[in-house]
Amino acid sequence: MKVIKFGGSSLANSTQLKKVLSIVKADDQRRYVIVSAPGKRFDGDTKVTDLLIQYARLTIHHQATAAIVQTIIDRYAEIGHGFNVPEAQLTPIFTTIKNLPNQTYADNTYLMAAFKAHGERLNAQLVAAVFQQMGLNARYLDPKDAGMVVTDVPDDAQLIASSYANLAKWAASEQILVIPGFFAYNRNGQICTFSRGGSDITGAIVARGVQADRYENFTDVDAIYAVNPKLVHQPAAISEMTFREMRELSYAGFSVFHDEALIPAIEGNITVNVKNTNHPEAPGTLIKSTRACNTAYPVTGIASSSSFCSLYLRKYLLNKEVGFGRKILTILEDHHVSYEHMPSGIDDLTIIFDEHQLTTALETELTAEIAAAVQPDELYFTHDYSILMLVGENMRNRVGIMSRAATALAQHGIKLIMVNQGASEISIMFGVHDRDADQAVIALYHEFFKA
Amino acid sequence: MKVIKFGGSSLANSTQLKKVLSIVKADDQRRYVIVSAPGKRFDGDTKVTDLLIQYARLTIHHQATAAIVQTIIDRYAEIGHGFNVPEAQLTPIFTTIKNLPNQTYADNTYLMAAFKAHGERLNAQLVAAVFQQMGLNARYLDPKDAGMVVTDVPDDAQLIASSYANLAKWAASEQILVIPGFFAYNRNGQICTFSRGGSDITGAIVARGVQADRYENFTDVDAIYAVNPKLVHQPAAISEMTFREMRELSYAGFSVFHDEALIPAIEGNITVNVKNTNHPEAPGTLIKSTRACNTAYPVTGIASSSSFCSLYLRKYLLNKEVGFGRKILTILEDHHVSYEHMPSGIDDLTIIFDEHQLTTALETELTAEIAAAVQPDELYFTHDYSILMLVGENMRNRVGIMSRAATALAQHGIKLIMVNQGASEISIMFGVHDRDADQAVIALYHEFFKA
Repeated sequence: MKVIKFGGSSLANSTQLKKVLSIVKADDQRRYVIVSAPGKRFDGDTKVTDLLIQYARLTIHHQATAAIVQTIIDRYAEIGHGFNVPEAQLTPIFTTIKNLPNQTYADNTYLMAAFKAHGERLNAQLVAAVFQQMGLNARYLDPKDAGMVVTDVPDDAQLIASSYANLAKWAASEQILVIPGFFAYNRNGQICTFSRGGSDITGAIVARGVQADRYENFTDVDAIYAVNPKLVHQPAAISEMTFREMRELSYAGFSVFHDEALIPAIEGNITVNVKNTNHPEAPGTLIKSTRACNTAYPVTGIASSSSFCSLYLRKYLLNKEVGFGRKILTILEDHHVSYEHMPSGIDDLTIIFDEHQLTTALETELTAEIAAAVQPDELYFTHDYSILMLVGENMRNRVGIMSRAATALAQHGIKLIMVNQGASEISIMFGVHDRDADQAVIALYHEFFKA
Repeated sequence: MKVIKFGGSSLANSTQLKKVLSIVKADDQRRYVIVSAPGKRFDGDTKVTDLLIQYARLTIHHQATAAIVQTIIDRYAEIGHGFNVPEAQLTPIFTTIKNLPNQTYADNTYLMAAFKAHGERLNAQLVAAVFQQMGLNARYLDPKDAGMVVTDVPDDAQLIASSYANLAKWAASEQILVIPGFFAYNRNGQICTFSRGGSDITGAIVARGVQADRYENFTDVDAIYAVNPKLVHQPAAISEMTFREMRELSYAGFSVFHDEALIPAIEGNITVNVKNTNHPEAPGTLIKSTRACNTAYPVTGIASSSSFCSLYLRKYLLNKEVGFGRKILTILEDHHVSYEHMPSGIDDLTIIFDEHQLTTALETELTAEIAAAVQPDELYFTHDYSILMLVGENMRNRVGIMSRAATALAQHGIKLIMVNQGASEISIMFGVHDRDADQAVIALYHEFFKA
């Protein structure tokens, strides 16, 4: 059987939910339906989750909430009324929204988590009611009843592994189970949410727990593309990719999945299928452990991200000094800063960071501490740093990929400030100046997909 | 004025010393002559230093030394007699050799250092006598009288910085000073030697101390070549290179200088000129702080070395883990192992080592400790690892070098297992399988020097 997850845009209103209904009806293997909160209906619209965050803030600050409550209720009401769900089934949902401030919360972090989680929780209840109304044998399954227990971190919970055995008990269900994404309960029964990408991870957890044959992840694109469609018109769709390729591409700007969202699917060896709610006939993209070799296209995808910065350090006879690397990494660790890469020359070293981790003050501090610890001849941060990733399982054991890539970039006059190939056989990493990043992606795309 | 250093092959016998004499006579700026011990006269010959090491071992083990003493004396005698140096000047040298075992040494390490150092010490005395005999105003200058004081490590001494002020007092000398390389004295007056490359470092120290205009380093090649002459017939000579280029090339197989030998010259900003004793008219190679840009040849030299091994480590979500790098480096440091480079992917990491540091037992130990500390999904050592360095100051700010290099390698079917560019702007590092290393160097040479 299949676990099937719908994102916010697939559930934004009754029109979208009709598509979801057809998709669920079209395949009786689609037995576990993971739902997000209703998303944006149009550009500039506000997601229900963001409305709930506002609602929580107003509650915390003891401000008037009537208007926001009505706005949230209206979103659910439109969907319910669109399918003639009886008022008797809608009223408890509306009441729950109104009563959220009257519950007991350990502190405001738990309050915020519970408010946000209700975007999914109430939507799953509503979707279950809609499915029933439309003749499906469906029911709502709360994460508590599903046996999903998480660590006690209200806004960044981790699943406790014993949950999988609990979920396995639901593997024989004949009913369609509608399960809210994004949250579960800690051992005290308090709501805790996963961090970003939370409904995707619920889908992966359920898929692993019930040992699904497939995890279908419905979104609003026909497939994952080999390159950002904002840079290249109608780029090649990726029909199949491995989990490792996904990871390498996610890293540098592919925003389809959060890094950690697919871990349970990987652990359970569940094939993931990214599909389009608005165009369910399209085969979408399969993400799996291994895949067939296609030598015509050595490269699977090309990603880029400008959210990096680098620290350059030069010291004569650096490579003779036992412990200099450890000293620097200890300083980073003391400041809870993780680094991405550390390419080194003979007498110099570049440390590449996700720049979101750093502030000007922290950079000054790190610079001072590293200067004191290793007394470099030169030491400075630079933010004009983009990373491009060329990723493909078919690059493994192939000669000439670097040649083609470097030549394509050189022909466009793009200066390489970093090249890193070596640890992973399935990717090559290029560092370029921010101004060159888009042009570099386009040049690589044309080399490997149009040649 | 100039400091001029002669290696062992330039001083192997009286025939060679005649060339040295002409060189010294040809330029009255050549005022400080640093001498090595007599080297090999022919393939298969034994250097005087190695004879002295045998002599020291026999002494330590209380074995007969008469034969080895005579062999050593014969080497000096041949040179002295070749220039008709009076017996009165040779006898003290022979006596010193015979009496080496009768001196007092703190322990056998000091004994070994003193025996070895006498290869240079007695040769400098002999060369001074030859120079006098041949009409030059020359004298022997002992490192003690020169004021060269070193740390108390008999076989790996470091110069104490105050020595430079002592040496500066000899800057005004009108005489030619013949100074032995390779050793000096600790604060207790005991002989301590520099580690490998020791006469080169004495030359650099004296050049800095007397603020020489140039440090001429005479060896047995016309120049430093852009590539190993064993791989390419009559390769291009390097007319000028910077200290940084020298360092980067030395690292991967260029054996002209020991890594640390030129540090005093770099600190003193003394231009080094590598020249050929057997062909002193050749301009040789200049090594200096900066050099003119020559865009026709972006690459200065290409080196390769197979003396590396690598440790591959893969772990899912590696880059999310604060502290994994530090944990690994701490383990290496605990075992006094320094690493060369650490290219990383998203979920994997390769650590490259100079393989001389490792034994099978140590590798097993490191593997076990790293496995315990970071619990990787995969972890193994591999020794089939050569590093190629493409080095050139003119590569700085140039587009297209990687393209040309990678294309040349691809055309020869050479698989790149590592590419590292980023920290140093003046070099690109390639990792290849050992079997491909020579072919790769040749391919790169033809691309950058013959195209």
